[in-house]
Amino acid sequence: MNKEVLIQQVGEVFVNNMPFNQLLKIAVVSLSPEHAKIAFPWQDVLIGNPAQKILHGGVISAALDNVGGMLAAASVIDKLSDVDIGSVQQKLATLGTIDMRTDYLRPGKGEKFIASATLIRSGNKVCVCRMELHNEQGVQIAFGTGTYLVG
Amino acid sequence: MNKEVLIQQVGEVFVNNMPFNQLLKIAVVSLSPEHAKIAFPWQDVLIGNPAQKILHGGVISAALDNVGGMLAAASVIDKLSDVDIGSVQQKLATLGTIDMRTDYLRPGKGEKFIASATLIRSGNKVCVCRMELHNEQGVQIAFGTGTYLVG
Amino acid sequence: MNKEVLIQQVGEVFVNNMPFNQLLKIAVVSLSPEHAKIAFPWQDVLIGNPAQKILHGGVISAALDNVGGMLAAASVIDKLSDVDIGSVQQKLATLGTIDMRTDYLRPGKGEKFIASATLIRSGNKVCVCRMELHNEQGVQIAFGTGTYLVG
Amino acid sequence: MNKEVLIQQVGEVFVNNMPFNQLLKIAVVSLSPEHAKIAFPWQDVLIGNPAQKILHGGVISAALDNVGGMLAAASVIDKLSDVDIGSVQQKLATLGTIDMRTDYLRPGKGEKFIASATLIRSGNKVCVCRMELHNEQGVQIAFGTGTYLVG
Repeated sequence: MNKEVLIQQVGEVFVNNMPFNQLLKIAVVSLSPEHAKIAFPWQDVLIGNPAQKILHGGVISAALDNVGGMLAAASVIDKLSDVDIGSVQQKLATLGTIDMRTDYLRPGKGEKFIASATLIRSGNKVCVCRMELHNEQGVQIAFGTGTYLVG
Repeated sequence: MNKEVLIQQVGEVFVNNMPFNQLLKIAVVSLSPEHAKIAFPWQDVLIGNPAQKILHGGVISAALDNVGGMLAAASVIDKLSDVDIGSVQQKLATLGTIDMRTDYLRPGKGEKFIASATLIRSGNKVCVCRMELHNEQGVQIAFGTGTYLVG
Repeated sequence: MNKEVLIQQVGEVFVNNMPFNQLLKIAVVSLSPEHAKIAFPWQDVLIGNPAQKILHGGVISAALDNVGGMLAAASVIDKLSDVDIGSVQQKLATLGTIDMRTDYLRPGKGEKFIASATLIRSGNKVCVCRMELHNEQGVQIAFGTGTYLVG
Repeated sequence: MNKEVLIQQVGEVFVNNMPFNQLLKIAVVSLSPEHAKIAFPWQDVLIGNPAQKILHGGVISAALDNVGGMLAAASVIDKLSDVDIGSVQQKLATLGTIDMRTDYLRPGKGEKFIASATLIRSGNKVCVCRMELHNEQGVQIAFGTGTYLVG
């Protein structure tokens, strides 16, 4: 199995096998070892503020953490010399978020939201990603920085 | 209306008027101008990891952000000289999370989760809170630090 | 006095009136309400690691905090309707870093270091900046995110 | 050589072999695999603010990073099964700060400053520490959270 196929499967695992991501209706837009992009639609259940129709801060953090973790996974798999399913599953089983910072810039208003991630540190044990959340009109809602254990 | 009653109403707003918090089934355990504690039960929809039955990282961040924001709100209302409903609503309307860091310590396993917050900086414009998440057995799952705009 | 002159004076205050910045030999490269750039040379006294000739992490954080704070100051002064010296001094006296995150990417090796900042949130009470540190060869050493009280 | 002696040597390396720490006049107060405490005196060269006689934010971050890194080192050495000098040096050579957050609570005023660290996550690859800075009168100046690569 080649790496490109494996990386697409990582995306599918994030979308299909995680109940909370299914609740958020997350879809993978693109995924490579250097960049990742996901999208999710507005839903009333995601409202955080009673007075305004805006996303809950926790939903924003969840989306940023997702796209960063997905990119960390893709990056790790891309570096594997041995691309059998066993090595991949072993790598993914140990992957986890160590810490994450979210900077909330503007109210989470929109019909559709796009979260993207870029790798800023790619190591054998730890990856660091920078993430952004925009709405469908290109308005930036949040920034994020996440450190992931990948070794 | 006295401040104690107003502070309890802040807790009720967080629990009853925010759809995403209702989805998380959050309940207020205690709320004062110095400390806040909330709880929420395990639900399968909150699963983040396909291989293990553990909370999604975004749910953990959401719970920490909630309890920190609730404490920031209680602290601000406690400092108001004029405790009429108008002043309170004006204060709460401008309250928002500026940034937040979550440190994930252990897998989010448990039947019930308790998030607590302590005020470490209390200003007229900005509050900073430290938060913790434990399960019903007292195992600590995460730490958080949040900066809130309150002025 | 026009704003452009005032903003240049802010840079001079950071460089000339702060003993620790003089120790770091910081110079202002450019300063506007949207971007700031400073530089400082290698000095043996800045070594953090005994085995390698690299910058101490605290020096890296100090440089990032400096350039972010300088930008927050320039941004605030640019928004003042009244640009007399009194208003400026009053604004600068209350300016301070609330919190900051540094992501250390690569060892701090080089002969000269350049720290730059971009404004990502510009409010009346709080500014948030993203910062980067590169060496003279364009190698990125660190990322930073800082939240500043400006109101 | 027993572990206790090795851990004391780690403290001495931080204090004696790092030029920037010598500039800060850092002394080790106590060091064990669970807690670390250092102290440093006021010096005019550490002033950050021209108007007030207070510590530069970068000095505060440096002190917090130091005490966290020292604790991470002590914790890692304590877990080594083989305590020869070679294994210790190999471990310390790879130790580094991945990311750090500082929360500035109060102006850095005082005659002497005490930075302390507690281990909140202790793994084979990554340690996370929480740090605090107080002055000689027990006034808390800052909080910190640092993630260290130790594997």
